[in-house]
Amino acid sequence: MRLSIERTRERIGDLHVGVMEAAKARLDNLTKPPGSLGVLEELAIRLSGITGRVLSEIRHKLVIVMAADHGVTAEGVSAYPSEVTAQMVMNFVNGGAAVNVLARHAGARMLVCDMGVKSNLECAGVLPIRVRPGTDNLATGPAMSRQEAIEAVERGIWVAEREIKSGADLVATGDMGIGNTTPSSAILAAFSGLPIRRLVGRGTGISDERLSRKVSAVSRALSVNRPDPRDAIDVLHKVGGLEIAGLAGVILGCAANRVPVIIDGFISGAAALVAAKLEPRSRQFMFASHLSEEPGHRHMLELLDLEPMLRMRMRLGEGTGAVLAMHLVEAACRIISEMASFQSAGVAGP
Amino acid sequence: MRLSIERTRERIGDLHVGVMEAAKARLDNLTKPPGSLGVLEELAIRLSGITGRVLSEIRHKLVIVMAADHGVTAEGVSAYPSEVTAQMVMNFVNGGAAVNVLARHAGARMLVCDMGVKSNLECAGVLPIRVRPGTDNLATGPAMSRQEAIEAVERGIWVAEREIKSGADLVATGDMGIGNTTPSSAILAAFSGLPIRRLVGRGTGISDERLSRKVSAVSRALSVNRPDPRDAIDVLHKVGGLEIAGLAGVILGCAANRVPVIIDGFISGAAALVAAKLEPRSRQFMFASHLSEEPGHRHMLELLDLEPMLRMRMRLGEGTGAVLAMHLVEAACRIISEMASFQSAGVAGP
Repeated sequence: MRLSIERTRERIGDLHVGVMEAAKARLDNLTKPPGSLGVLEELAIRLSGITGRVLSEIRHKLVIVMAADHGVTAEGVSAYPSEVTAQMVMNFVNGGAAVNVLARHAGARMLVCDMGVKSNLECAGVLPIRVRPGTDNLATGPAMSRQEAIEAVERGIWVAEREIKSGADLVATGDMGIGNTTPSSAILAAFSGLPIRRLVGRGTGISDERLSRKVSAVSRALSVNRPDPRDAIDVLHKVGGLEIAGLAGVILGCAANRVPVIIDGFISGAAALVAAKLEPRSRQFMFASHLSEEPGHRHMLELLDLEPMLRMRMRLGEGTGAVLAMHLVEAACRIISEMASFQSAGVAGP
Repeated sequence: MRLSIERTRERIGDLHVGVMEAAKARLDNLTKPPGSLGVLEELAIRLSGITGRVLSEIRHKLVIVMAADHGVTAEGVSAYPSEVTAQMVMNFVNGGAAVNVLARHAGARMLVCDMGVKSNLECAGVLPIRVRPGTDNLATGPAMSRQEAIEAVERGIWVAEREIKSGADLVATGDMGIGNTTPSSAILAAFSGLPIRRLVGRGTGISDERLSRKVSAVSRALSVNRPDPRDAIDVLHKVGGLEIAGLAGVILGCAANRVPVIIDGFISGAAALVAAKLEPRSRQFMFASHLSEEPGHRHMLELLDLEPMLRMRMRLGEGTGAVLAMHLVEAACRIISEMASFQSAGVAGP
């Protein structure tokens, strides 16, 4: 039951332009000045283009949180030890993490996937689709093999397919992996060519000393590995991470099935860059949730040409920003469905 | 049962600093890097300072929408005729407006108040507390008398008191009044002294011609009336509006009762400026919801020193941005209450 990247790419289509025009016409006839709900109206129009229906109803919200470990932690780039990845996965299973709280608040189901946690996680609450137990240190060589990167993306596609078949109609992406802002910065640096110092931030809140180590790790990752920005899989296997690869697959799987996918912050953004590079049309199915405190995030969103809805100075990941934005996407669905028209309400137009 | 502005001002206290420190200590021990939830954590801390409890639960969300007409529409400053104010109030009562849809989505009750609609609204769904049937044209003289402005503020205080006594524990402000971005710009100009052209926008979406008329109306309002920026009631009665005055009262009433109040966009922002001028401590009880497309709004938020959470390019008013932000304030309450601590989850700290 292998779902190849190539086959998935081919299934990703364009937005339904005619349905979007019908959605805009409907919105312009509702009791408000045309366009005055701004992004809410744009969300409603794009959802129509995705689903092919003017009115959509969201019935089954899902946040997919993918976890993995990172060999680059050997460089001392994080304030937390690697063991915290597995500990936080157990926290997800027990419902105590920030993303659990916000997913409950959003009315979303949560699926936790082990894409490559180092220690054994034997737990019914985690989907065990680990490709390998963590990556190698990207500062000294490739993080994983090309084949492993492809495998991780394809497992992500498989997860999305499976969940959408079970009914998921709005997906949010989330991540857990101590050290994973480092591969995310490296991916961004490889694709953008921007100066590395502008793309490396304090992640969970590291000291100046760790920050210099992180900048050095990303610089060495690029000079040692020489990732080819025209080849997304080359970038991914050399300087990426297993959860980032899996999330890129989730995004492609959503796009192939015409399901809107809300992108969380910096790590999910790196996955979105990979997905957009693999198939540019996938971008049309993505919604940016928030602007992260991580300084490289705004560059990512510019490359993706996506506009964040929330400015909450968050920098936690896990999918926290994405689940928080589900409320806004649902609001857009309700606006176009439930508002009165000028005629039905007896209100004079402009 | 008159609630004077003076008496209400005296009741507005400061935030409970000790409780805020306890809230911060609790947040720093939850399973996330300290401060990594950004504004969500700041919301939780400020809510603690407001309520005096580390953990708050929101049980009764309310959006108060105040409506009134504006004599300045005679200057041709709006794309819509004045009659639309009353028509939209009926749309609110019938549940078809954008704010109705978003209030339902937020799980909030909605209260519509007639503060000064020109035509008679005899309808059980509207609280009839009209001070006068619309203002006079502020471009040619005072919008209302000083006594009427005070009366409108005090009716707003009365509404807040009444609703808080009935259980409201999170209030959002909303407005309806064709022409009301003009008095809002005039209030902002009076308080800020900034060039009028930077404070006047297209409101519901007016033409270049109407925009010049609007700039001229605000300029004349200031030169004819010479409002004194040190005297908020002077500004309010000369260049304000009845719903703006009422909302300033609602904000003061919330602050006096230590109930958090979410400020909508440009018109609610003008009311917040008046409230903050009347009693600077009231600012501590305000939360800014979104950044409006109206160009003067960012200057308002700077004067108020409030940071908007949502960037949705909205410019509708009615309370739409404020009800959309209720989800975020509730999220903050749930984060501090429901997340696991490092110890309880068995997660290693930094």
